Amino acid sequence: MKTIKGPAIFLAQFLTDQSPYNNLGDICKWAYSLGYKGVQIPSWDKRCLDLQLAAESKTYADEINGIVTEAGLEITELCSHLQGQLVAVHLALDSNFDNFSPAGLHGKPKEKAEWATQQLKYAAKASKNLGLKAHGTFSGNLMWHTVYPWPQRVKGSVDEGFKELAKRWLPILNAFDEAGVDLCYEIHPGEDLHDGITFERFLKETGNHKRAKILYDPSHFVLQQLNYLDYIDIYHSYIKMFHVKDAEFNPTGKSGVYGGYQDWIDRPGRFRSTGDGQVNFKSIFSKLAQYDYEGWAVLEWECCLKNSLDGAKEGAEFIKKHIIKVADRAFDDFAG
Amino acid sequence: MKTIKGPAIFLAQFLTDQSPYNNLGDICKWAYSLGYKGVQIPSWDKRCLDLQLAAESKTYADEINGIVTEAGLEITELCSHLQGQLVAVHLALDSNFDNFSPAGLHGKPKEKAEWATQQLKYAAKASKNLGLKAHGTFSGNLMWHTVYPWPQRVKGSVDEGFKELAKRWLPILNAFDEAGVDLCYEIHPGEDLHDGITFERFLKETGNHKRAKILYDPSHFVLQQLNYLDYIDIYHSYIKMFHVKDAEFNPTGKSGVYGGYQDWIDRPGRFRSTGDGQVNFKSIFSKLAQYDYEGWAVLEWECCLKNSLDGAKEGAEFIKKHIIKVADRAFDDFAG
Amino acid sequence: MKTIKGPAIFLAQFLTDQSPYNNLGDICKWAYSLGYKGVQIPSWDKRCLDLQLAAESKTYADEINGIVTEAGLEITELCSHLQGQLVAVHLALDSNFDNFSPAGLHGKPKEKAEWATQQLKYAAKASKNLGLKAHGTFSGNLMWHTVYPWPQRVKGSVDEGFKELAKRWLPILNAFDEAGVDLCYEIHPGEDLHDGITFERFLKETGNHKRAKILYDPSHFVLQQLNYLDYIDIYHSYIKMFHVKDAEFNPTGKSGVYGGYQDWIDRPGRFRSTGDGQVNFKSIFSKLAQYDYEGWAVLEWECCLKNSLDGAKEGAEFIKKHIIKVADRAFDDFAG
Amino acid sequence: MKTIKGPAIFLAQFLTDQSPYNNLGDICKWAYSLGYKGVQIPSWDKRCLDLQLAAESKTYADEINGIVTEAGLEITELCSHLQGQLVAVHLALDSNFDNFSPAGLHGKPKEKAEWATQQLKYAAKASKNLGLKAHGTFSGNLMWHTVYPWPQRVKGSVDEGFKELAKRWLPILNAFDEAGVDLCYEIHPGEDLHDGITFERFLKETGNHKRAKILYDPSHFVLQQLNYLDYIDIYHSYIKMFHVKDAEFNPTGKSGVYGGYQDWIDRPGRFRSTGDGQVNFKSIFSKLAQYDYEGWAVLEWECCLKNSLDGAKEGAEFIKKHIIKVADRAFDDFAG
Amino acid sequence: MKTIKGPAIFLAQFLTDQSPYNNLGDICKWAYSLGYKGVQIPSWDKRCLDLQLAAESKTYADEINGIVTEAGLEITELCSHLQGQLVAVHLALDSNFDNFSPAGLHGKPKEKAEWATQQLKYAAKASKNLGLKAHGTFSGNLMWHTVYPWPQRVKGSVDEGFKELAKRWLPILNAFDEAGVDLCYEIHPGEDLHDGITFERFLKETGNHKRAKILYDPSHFVLQQLNYLDYIDIYHSYIKMFHVKDAEFNPTGKSGVYGGYQDWIDRPGRFRSTGDGQVNFKSIFSKLAQYDYEGWAVLEWECCLKNSLDGAKEGAEFIKKHIIKVADRAFDDFAG
Amino acid sequence: MKTIKGPAIFLAQFLTDQSPYNNLGDICKWAYSLGYKGVQIPSWDKRCLDLQLAAESKTYADEINGIVTEAGLEITELCSHLQGQLVAVHLALDSNFDNFSPAGLHGKPKEKAEWATQQLKYAAKASKNLGLKAHGTFSGNLMWHTVYPWPQRVKGSVDEGFKELAKRWLPILNAFDEAGVDLCYEIHPGEDLHDGITFERFLKETGNHKRAKILYDPSHFVLQQLNYLDYIDIYHSYIKMFHVKDAEFNPTGKSGVYGGYQDWIDRPGRFRSTGDGQVNFKSIFSKLAQYDYEGWAVLEWECCLKNSLDGAKEGAEFIKKHIIKVADRAFDDFAG
Repeated sequence: MKTIKGPAIFLAQFLTDQSPYNNLGDICKWAYSLGYKGVQIPSWDKRCLDLQLAAESKTYADEINGIVTEAGLEITELCSHLQGQLVAVHLALDSNFDNFSPAGLHGKPKEKAEWATQQLKYAAKASKNLGLKAHGTFSGNLMWHTVYPWPQRVKGSVDEGFKELAKRWLPILNAFDEAGVDLCYEIHPGEDLHDGITFERFLKETGNHKRAKILYDPSHFVLQQLNYLDYIDIYHSYIKMFHVKDAEFNPTGKSGVYGGYQDWIDRPGRFRSTGDGQVNFKSIFSKLAQYDYEGWAVLEWECCLKNSLDGAKEGAEFIKKHIIKVADRAFDDFAG
Repeated sequence: MKTIKGPAIFLAQFLTDQSPYNNLGDICKWAYSLGYKGVQIPSWDKRCLDLQLAAESKTYADEINGIVTEAGLEITELCSHLQGQLVAVHLALDSNFDNFSPAGLHGKPKEKAEWATQQLKYAAKASKNLGLKAHGTFSGNLMWHTVYPWPQRVKGSVDEGFKELAKRWLPILNAFDEAGVDLCYEIHPGEDLHDGITFERFLKETGNHKRAKILYDPSHFVLQQLNYLDYIDIYHSYIKMFHVKDAEFNPTGKSGVYGGYQDWIDRPGRFRSTGDGQVNFKSIFSKLAQYDYEGWAVLEWECCLKNSLDGAKEGAEFIKKHIIKVADRAFDDFAG
Repeated sequence: MKTIKGPAIFLAQFLTDQSPYNNLGDICKWAYSLGYKGVQIPSWDKRCLDLQLAAESKTYADEINGIVTEAGLEITELCSHLQGQLVAVHLALDSNFDNFSPAGLHGKPKEKAEWATQQLKYAAKASKNLGLKAHGTFSGNLMWHTVYPWPQRVKGSVDEGFKELAKRWLPILNAFDEAGVDLCYEIHPGEDLHDGITFERFLKETGNHKRAKILYDPSHFVLQQLNYLDYIDIYHSYIKMFHVKDAEFNPTGKSGVYGGYQDWIDRPGRFRSTGDGQVNFKSIFSKLAQYDYEGWAVLEWECCLKNSLDGAKEGAEFIKKHIIKVADRAFDDFAG
Repeated sequence: MKTIKGPAIFLAQFLTDQSPYNNLGDICKWAYSLGYKGVQIPSWDKRCLDLQLAAESKTYADEINGIVTEAGLEITELCSHLQGQLVAVHLALDSNFDNFSPAGLHGKPKEKAEWATQQLKYAAKASKNLGLKAHGTFSGNLMWHTVYPWPQRVKGSVDEGFKELAKRWLPILNAFDEAGVDLCYEIHPGEDLHDGITFERFLKETGNHKRAKILYDPSHFVLQQLNYLDYIDIYHSYIKMFHVKDAEFNPTGKSGVYGGYQDWIDRPGRFRSTGDGQVNFKSIFSKLAQYDYEGWAVLEWECCLKNSLDGAKEGAEFIKKHIIKVADRAFDDFAG
Repeated sequence: MKTIKGPAIFLAQFLTDQSPYNNLGDICKWAYSLGYKGVQIPSWDKRCLDLQLAAESKTYADEINGIVTEAGLEITELCSHLQGQLVAVHLALDSNFDNFSPAGLHGKPKEKAEWATQQLKYAAKASKNLGLKAHGTFSGNLMWHTVYPWPQRVKGSVDEGFKELAKRWLPILNAFDEAGVDLCYEIHPGEDLHDGITFERFLKETGNHKRAKILYDPSHFVLQQLNYLDYIDIYHSYIKMFHVKDAEFNPTGKSGVYGGYQDWIDRPGRFRSTGDGQVNFKSIFSKLAQYDYEGWAVLEWECCLKNSLDGAKEGAEFIKKHIIKVADRAFDDFAG
Repeated sequence: MKTIKGPAIFLAQFLTDQSPYNNLGDICKWAYSLGYKGVQIPSWDKRCLDLQLAAESKTYADEINGIVTEAGLEITELCSHLQGQLVAVHLALDSNFDNFSPAGLHGKPKEKAEWATQQLKYAAKASKNLGLKAHGTFSGNLMWHTVYPWPQRVKGSVDEGFKELAKRWLPILNAFDEAGVDLCYEIHPGEDLHDGITFERFLKETGNHKRAKILYDPSHFVLQQLNYLDYIDIYHSYIKMFHVKDAEFNPTGKSGVYGGYQDWIDRPGRFRSTGDGQVNFKSIFSKLAQYDYEGWAVLEWECCLKNSLDGAKEGAEFIKKHIIKVADRAFDDFAG
């Protein structure tokens, strides 16, 4: 049996323009002071690293690793959610995602997708240079606007959608394979890969590509009422990354899953600071231990109520408390 | 106290090109034979009536009523879901809804909306000519493509959306007010009015228009996990139409509310023949009786498994059994 | 194993001044026409019988039985809820119950109690004369005004209360013993005997009187959230009468068990027509069959919504469907 | 989509020595009179047929079919639970099962197993002669006495057990394959094949034998608290027979699953007449329809309370009501 | 957003005649040592303060504040439950409440009510002198003895009761308004204001008096099975005080809500030390944060099992852990 | 009221051949360092003590007590599960339990039982010499192989089984009575005493022997879905020992209670480190406090995932946190 690594923290939501949250070294020291052992790095944020440079220069990658190591931490993985999103966007919704790309590409769908593809290839190489084994991203969304089947979908449109999605991702998956890195899709509403079924269809269209894996984040399953514990039983062999993020869903007589266009704080489904929501992390950590998950437990933090610094601090303690140091021998069930 | 009227049946899903399902007179006789007392008529289906004519000719309206009466039934209400939908469609998704309009208007968003608005005005007058008190429709969807807040919505876009929605509907609401008919929006995923919150926002933007009402169909609340019983407690004064339609939601480790782009039969949330799903109709009929709902209980039928004729037959019995003939005196709680 | 008798109907709530509900013979014929096999008779209602006369004249009792038999029915039991209530009333609340006694006694607590005691003694003899084996009543309430312990109860007051209650009832219990009839207290909020604990305390104070038994009515347990199935497991040997009466409890954010002084229709806990509430009668009938209950299943009907005639009609069918005709041999569990 | 066949009835528990329950023709007429369309026949009961003869003589088989047909019914399948049990019995418990074999074999484990194996081979041929497609049986139990792992099991003993079990069944499975008949194991506590896991292990040891299938009976899953609905999702492709049998499980503070050596009527888990238990048959019939199960729905009846004739009568109505006549076209989800 | 203030402690149940629990200064120091930041003071307990003097002398009020401040704490609010109770008592139950008034008034209902009214007016002025913004009390109970509607209530009696209740409280509410202090009724069984419905009726009878507010204590809602979370959604704008008090409700087959006249330790509903009961405080603190509650979280402690000093100590930690320091910026939902 | 003693730890699963876990003195010091106050000693493990010697020599017993006391602890009780098991084993399963006896007795059922009986008698005397009040053991299993009633049990076999069981245990119970020590049977699947019913039947057969008591371990009730809280309500007067051991039961569509012969880690029911399972210890400790349990709370630890040293450490904290130091006075429910 294997013991999960952690606690680690995803830096994306903590980076600001104030010290110590405005550069990699300082934010790592802050994270260390809270008890973290690893950091997950958003590859789009220059305050952390220059992705292209990390892909092209082993020396630079070593420097980045050095900064993190000096703070007492490890890099757990890189992430490329914003770029991954742009690999596949339906034309109808293209403008909604302009902000994720360089200003020069706004309004140019094709160029945005090409830019994003290149970014992902850099991410593969950068991960390799940094000595990492997994990478987190989003799948993009060619079909999400049809997620509720009204009006009825055109026959065959879903098959075509997955084929196109696989076509766009296969070169990237191959790049990750060359780099020896697993490409983990965060399963997330708004993305074409938003549940187990869609992951399976995508996987099949990629020819069961051996690098197509899952970033498991139960908060997104709470918000769609998917059974996130059974999910682990079914898909554990694909789970190579893990976000410790909490959420709650409290439907009322006024609103349900769709949320009535309300702000996060007013929606029945909303993200909460770790431990403040409904996710049964005790069972999740048990299942991941049972299935020999050997990656990291990485805090991802968003809460509509609590301040982020308490969230980061409590998150380190929460994860530490939940990691099961596994037994080195089977228990001796002699009796009672 | 008042006793709900029924059973009635919405004809939309039963009309075909075979006798007796291919003209109003015959299908009414078939419905009567099953025990129905009323029919709800889709205003877009020429096999039932010519909407414009019914709006413009009291004589024609009387003839329609005559056909129904002769079969032993009453018209409960007209419906205009397809036309209502076209009153407001976001440009990005416009082509998805082309089929709801005359072929000549396909690809012409503005013309479609104008056509739809006219249709609704006809519906108001036709309802008046037919002696009806309520009318059912859809709100259309200017914002639905942003229902999951990823990427984040532009600040103010929801406010603007509802203002625009109200602007388009106000002339229609006024037409219905002139006709003395309540305009009941079916609260439905895919439409901007998909829960209580969105109905409230819309209502407010219409200046609490006295004809803006609700067509209550619990099946759509099961599929979004909204509490459909509390809904009645909150909104009962707006409920002027009622669809008896069943549904079930059985999430798994593979799929949840969003359904993974699967067909209806494979989705965790799906419609079922009346009585075969999870809707607690016993409590619904109790609440409607308690709140003196005096409209009709109208079967709407869609099932991914059962054949429609059994559905229609069982539906009549089901509704009949559930209607509570209310007491004419309070019970005398003397004891035990 | 024994098969429960039924369906029967408690006449109290159906007697009116209109035919056929205004005399014993006619109302019995009406009950028979609905499928009932027995009637339970309120001993305070002269439209059914003269209690004193039935106690004093075997001939009169035979005539009463004759009227019922002629209609095709049996008398299941007599009831004396109103008189039993008056056996024990706390002085502070005495005026609330004046209506249950002859006008001349209003405002005279002691005389009312004496009158009530005499009534119960008549009921014992009348039951004997009618050939009955059980009788239903209320315990009265010396302590109910202290049911919520605010302010704190005076030490010892509960012990004293039960002693006084037993003292009042012992002569009556003895009269029933002489008559060979079980005296069954309906366990009911508002009465001192309102749950299992209070029945046990009373029973103990009567020296475990062999005629002190229970009239089981699950509706009153729903309204106090007592586990009415476990209740049968614990007290089945005392249950000698059974009211088939339904209820529901739907607490909200506005009101709970205490109901906020609202009318029945608005209270979270309320009585419903048989089958329309939450009582799990399937399990109740199973348990009573398992424990060889050999008495009657008697509809008691109160509903805040439905008309009483539907209630009576559906009740007969409901009870008939729920009575388990028990096996005459154990099943042969050979396999599969 | 396909419509389940039924209602049918398993004759085993209804055969007695009194007319009309004492010979195949008469009992079939009785079954027909209740509304059944098929009978499932216990192959060990001479009142129904002579198994060896039916295997060896097509003429005799035709006569048997003729008797059933004449009564207006079909044979759904043969069953061999008692003989199947004897194919594999652990020596320690051998004497417990003597009664299932001819008297001359009692106390002779090896001979009993050989006799049982021959019986099963006859069953294969008899099924073929009768034109049947499936056959129901038990797996026997080499390991059941170790089902609770106290004391700890010897390492490897489970592997060996399944190997031995498969070794005994493979010749029989081959015989069924020759006959073109599926061999369906009823998954049942007390048998080595008592859940999904054990079926999978057995299947694997048989080299995924194409005739190794499942007789699905949810009552046995209620009694072990296995999720019988998920079971269908996982194993539906193996389910070729279906027993409609009800059960309930009501654990208390005194007893749980193991039942404390009590009689059936007192156990927390017990069988009940169809509709009187806790099995969610509405969902079972929905799932079987969804997965295109095309076999029979066969009442198996055991109840610790109700008489069997009511059970048979109500069972026919129950199954009839639950069979979903499937749609011949997908519903037209135009709207609301 | 606003952060709830606390932890604070209600002193009533901790005051004794032993040091340090026998005078305001010492008990405040003890509370401070446990981590409390505020104390809520029972205005009837001379060990804390002289209410009349605090109303009449700003100097004295300043001294009281000085004692508390010196101990490192603040006064959160004064309370007058005992006096508030006496403002309105039904005659039938008057003697039960004698102990709450000075000995000379026992048995004199009218004088007791006048005394109580004066006490409340003092409480208003004392609160003003102490610089407080809210005050906690009980409504009294004119109708509680009729809370279970048996016998049926006299028509109109509830309306009259609320009118009388409002009439008694209006002068007091006006006094509080002059003092600029909210008068918060603790919603509590035994009081006329025992749920949301009764608060609404009272509020209406006071002409929606702007000082009529709520002291929210979820323990009293657990014991009547009212939904205490929905309660916040509905009434949050009225909640100006908050008791952190825990409770549990475990009904059995022997007893339910009414409790069978048992002692607290044996009742299905009973109070428990904070964190030992069933109240979902995580959700309560979340909702209060969401609705910008800006008052104090005050421990009120009663437990039928645990010693009070552990209760006080654990309570401080419990409240501290549950207070959500709210975010100063909305989270940046960029991704994952 | 009384406060439970603890935390204590059962040494059986922690003894190894490595220091400090290989002798009583050192393992006690280790336990003390974790916060334990008592140790429960497996009487079969020579690393702890020589049972016969402790029975025969008060001096030796004092030395043992001295070793424990010196480490800062007390002995809570001795246990004899392995020997108790051998007092009664059905012949069919005899070989499975050979390992619990000295090698020379393997294969000799009668001699094993005699040896075991002698061991238990030593345990009684040793407990007396050590000044202990209770002793824990297993009942053995004469009937467990028939726990699932397939095939049907022979009439009368259960009665005979309990008679035989009582016959074997009566001399031992008498020996414990002479020693003034309660003999507590751990209620456990696999043993004849596995629930409340079987304990009751055994107790009755022993003539309600005053030393026949219960070792309460809720983990074994979780695994058989027995209501372990109601169990305390029913049997609290017999509970004289208490194992704090956790477990979980998560049935799936593949497996239920019986577990499919899987290893512990894969079974739906499995033991977990204290606090990691589903046992509601908060309610258990409340009930034991309510019923004045005055024995020890002893950690028993088995977990299929976590390492044992974390288990022991967390267990001490867990028990300490859950022990309720009871109140020395009833709370003063003055108000709110």
